Amino acid sequence: MVADLVADGEFEVTAADASPMALERPAVAGAASRIQADLSDPATVTQLAADHDLVVGAVPGPLGFQTMKAVVEAGKHYVDISFFEEDAFELDAFAKENGAVALTDCGVAPGLSNLILGYHDATADHVDRFVCYVGGLPEERSGPFEYRAPFSPIDIIAEYTRPARYVEAGEIRIAPALAQLEQLEFPEVGTLEAFLTDGLRTLVDTVQVPDMREKTMRYPGHAERMLFLRELGLFSEEPIDVDGVMVAPIQLVSKLLFPFWRFKPGEGDLTVMRVEVDTVTAGESRHHVYDLLDRYDSSTDTQSMARTTGYTCTAMVRLVARGAYSEVGVSPPEYVGRVAGCFESVLADLQARGVSLVKSS
Amino acid sequence: MVADLVADGEFEVTAADASPMALERPAVAGAASRIQADLSDPATVTQLAADHDLVVGAVPGPLGFQTMKAVVEAGKHYVDISFFEEDAFELDAFAKENGAVALTDCGVAPGLSNLILGYHDATADHVDRFVCYVGGLPEERSGPFEYRAPFSPIDIIAEYTRPARYVEAGEIRIAPALAQLEQLEFPEVGTLEAFLTDGLRTLVDTVQVPDMREKTMRYPGHAERMLFLRELGLFSEEPIDVDGVMVAPIQLVSKLLFPFWRFKPGEGDLTVMRVEVDTVTAGESRHHVYDLLDRYDSSTDTQSMARTTGYTCTAMVRLVARGAYSEVGVSPPEYVGRVAGCFESVLADLQARGVSLVKSS
Repeated sequence: MVADLVADGEFEVTAADASPMALERPAVAGAASRIQADLSDPATVTQLAADHDLVVGAVPGPLGFQTMKAVVEAGKHYVDISFFEEDAFELDAFAKENGAVALTDCGVAPGLSNLILGYHDATADHVDRFVCYVGGLPEERSGPFEYRAPFSPIDIIAEYTRPARYVEAGEIRIAPALAQLEQLEFPEVGTLEAFLTDGLRTLVDTVQVPDMREKTMRYPGHAERMLFLRELGLFSEEPIDVDGVMVAPIQLVSKLLFPFWRFKPGEGDLTVMRVEVDTVTAGESRHHVYDLLDRYDSSTDTQSMARTTGYTCTAMVRLVARGAYSEVGVSPPEYVGRVAGCFESVLADLQARGVSLVKSS
Repeated sequence: MVADLVADGEFEVTAADASPMALERPAVAGAASRIQADLSDPATVTQLAADHDLVVGAVPGPLGFQTMKAVVEAGKHYVDISFFEEDAFELDAFAKENGAVALTDCGVAPGLSNLILGYHDATADHVDRFVCYVGGLPEERSGPFEYRAPFSPIDIIAEYTRPARYVEAGEIRIAPALAQLEQLEFPEVGTLEAFLTDGLRTLVDTVQVPDMREKTMRYPGHAERMLFLRELGLFSEEPIDVDGVMVAPIQLVSKLLFPFWRFKPGEGDLTVMRVEVDTVTAGESRHHVYDLLDRYDSSTDTQSMARTTGYTCTAMVRLVARGAYSEVGVSPPEYVGRVAGCFESVLADLQARGVSLVKSS
């Protein structure tokens, strides 16, 4: 994101990180300044934010909410890609008071997927159905998992244990994660499986769509293996007595999974997303399908997951910076999608960076 | 075995066990005497053996070898159903010196399967091929495993990790356990899968057959799940650091598997065995197939695994007791099978107890 914003020539970018090593990475080299700072301290964040016009947040999940609050406290605009558990809308009144535009969940999904739904929600009479299929996958299918993760195994396992909210017949329903397994076909990629995960987030409250689901995609067989480990009790956080020592099974299994799931240097990833939206306008039903397939960029050693999430985020930064989106308070991307021109602008920015969202119907 | 030998009316049976509870079981009620004794002490075993004509061994594997030695030391005949790792033939010279007939591996497989091969080895010009398929299964297929075990999970897992010896083209070869997966059909039972396990034991040395395998059977899908857990590292005995405590993954997974694999009271089991033997006699090739399907006896609450192993063992006891098998030294069942009449006698005893070995070709 630093490199992408620097390349615009319109921003004077400061990169801040607790790790001096992170600040030495080539991607950060173009920043006007680089500041080593403990961003887990909200006062430090507020102080740094005060010297800038707009802040991009990319912090670990547990720091996400407090960081948004700290930036808003400085009265600065904020575009966030951190995935946090708390409800961002709790900061809405505070952001409004402070005149801050605070965008949350600005990645690919949540993020771009919300933008699509917001666009249709604003342009159709009503939206009847929304499904977001999304997966980050290794380019090479190898090993017993055919899976790699840019995150720690414990964060991935959370997706497989957290009950998944979805909307059916106008009601919020809850199913176990990994439920509603189905298979889909994708050109170039082949067959993938998709299962329910708890990814609707703000959409559950912000749009009136009677049927909404978010499903995670993997190469086939993954869900069965994860269900098996879950049923066996290996995802439990409850410590059990093993030969006199107390051990949480999830800690042991995360440790064992780590070498299998870690991307090795130079290994590429794929981002696959399909969003289906059913609309009705002037009595006419339409079925819209958006497909995104993006690959690792070996020339810059940039993972596809970084490209798709990061470029969506920087596209949002441009919208806020030039006042195209100026609603103060907390906004998820579906709000941005409702504003004329914003969706098209983000798509154009993505396209310019080689990330194509193709509308096939 | 106690109840079965008592029922003959020819034996005065003493039951010995470390556990007073075990000595209270209905199956032991008919014994002439019941002795609570620490059988992990070889001197105690030798002393007890001295007062009897013949000893049946059914001790935990780690006590198996020392118990055979202790009985032989008393100069008494021994029929053993304990499954131990050590080489029983190391006691052969000692048994010969002491005039003891010592039969090892007298269960169903190893046991009955060896008897079949010994019989054909003695009656044909030569045996070209031997395969023993065998499995202990729950009658009811339920849960994520469709499996129950009368032993501790850690002993079952040992079958899935110990490299499997087999004989091919006249050479002893070694494959990982769970290799050579295939599916077989059984009337009443349906499709089972079979995979290589290290069950040939003495046969590797005692018969000249150029192609021999022992394969374990389960309901389909079991091997894949076990391979998956093994590949993940969950069967490793090497302790790893989990949040500062050292844990052997196999200990944790055994603990988690226990409630899934344990037979609940009244749950029945099946024993399924198929033995194939290819012989050549006077230039004529023959393909022999033996099938055994035995079920839990609900009237006496006797597991099929106890029936098939125990009744084979007591049939061997009768052979030794009446001098039908009188070769001093250590003998595996294939030696017994070579002696005219012994194989037929064991089959007749099994048949009388409802355990049918059916020769289908």
